[in-house]
Amino acid sequence: MPSVKDILIEMKDMSELMVDLAYSAVLFNNKAAADEVITLENRLNSMNYEIKKQSLVAARSLEDAEKLTTLLEIAEAAESMGNAAKDLADLTLKGFEPHPVFKMVMEESEKNIVRFKVYENSVLVNNSLGELLLLNRTGMRIISIRRGDSWIYGPDKNTVILAGDVLIAKGSETGTEIIEKLADGEINLEDLGNIEEFIDDD
Amino acid sequence: MPSVKDILIEMKDMSELMVDLAYSAVLFNNKAAADEVITLENRLNSMNYEIKKQSLVAARSLEDAEKLTTLLEIAEAAESMGNAAKDLADLTLKGFEPHPVFKMVMEESEKNIVRFKVYENSVLVNNSLGELLLLNRTGMRIISIRRGDSWIYGPDKNTVILAGDVLIAKGSETGTEIIEKLADGEINLEDLGNIEEFIDDD
Repeated sequence: MPSVKDILIEMKDMSELMVDLAYSAVLFNNKAAADEVITLENRLNSMNYEIKKQSLVAARSLEDAEKLTTLLEIAEAAESMGNAAKDLADLTLKGFEPHPVFKMVMEESEKNIVRFKVYENSVLVNNSLGELLLLNRTGMRIISIRRGDSWIYGPDKNTVILAGDVLIAKGSETGTEIIEKLADGEINLEDLGNIEEFIDDD
Repeated sequence: MPSVKDILIEMKDMSELMVDLAYSAVLFNNKAAADEVITLENRLNSMNYEIKKQSLVAARSLEDAEKLTTLLEIAEAAESMGNAAKDLADLTLKGFEPHPVFKMVMEESEKNIVRFKVYENSVLVNNSLGELLLLNRTGMRIISIRRGDSWIYGPDKNTVILAGDVLIAKGSETGTEIIEKLADGEINLEDLGNIEEFIDDD
């Protein structure tokens, strides 16, 4: 059984990711992002339930109860954020009528979010993010990794990419094409030599 | 009068920032972050009101109305996220009783958010983020800049830092100390020579 601490960290990370994905879903009419939001929302609900259950069992005194209340309020806030994100995702999945302003927002924004799978023959496989330096090389930041049913939020330089991982990355449209080709195994890191250098402070 | 497009982009950016700041406020008991959330929440409310007003004026046909509804739903979702963030900030400002688990979350998280002012004699002044390469040099990412009453969300390599700017940065505790000293004018970029190199794919 995961600890309250682990649940809380995951609820926080999950709700932040959902907010990001949901805006991307609705503004870029990105159904893949919307699907992820729905999956995450279901999980967030179960986690909120779990944290409530564990808190009620843990409370032994009024002082305990006071501390646990804060914890429950954070879980509630995470769920509220998740719900708002779900509303946006639902809009996308229902096939809404996009307002012309979205196209303008999209053109101005350099921060699309993409989701793609890493194939076995990809150069990314079995390398850490620290070794790959994808941000410098492609201008794309890996914000999360879905591995089977589990998630890695905010992966760091030591996180190793495995075949079958689903990466969620944020960045420009040019970067999207490059990183998807790397994940497909279509191109290697050496092929990036002629691509203009990206600045990391984006 | 700002356009609906500009309001929408700002509401999106603002609600994302509020979510980040609010979690930081409650988990790190960071009152400065909580104060920013409250300020942003007031602004978010006025923007939602503005977008509703402009939409009602703009609707000329049922088709118009359908497209405008989506826009209003996005604004509503942004406000819901903002409200959830405000609930967390309120908790911090009321002086809540922190659950011991927060300390554990804090110790595990490498992603505190800090807010600090840039002083006139700082090396950061009148330099662009692209020139400063703060992420590489300090491990801190500048996520937003408050300049007087206006905000720059997701500044890019061309964004120039001015004296008096309030920077919101995300990163490790070590990085926090370094970047605050740079902003105070206590140290220069050359003083960073002996600091271990940071990997940008954090």
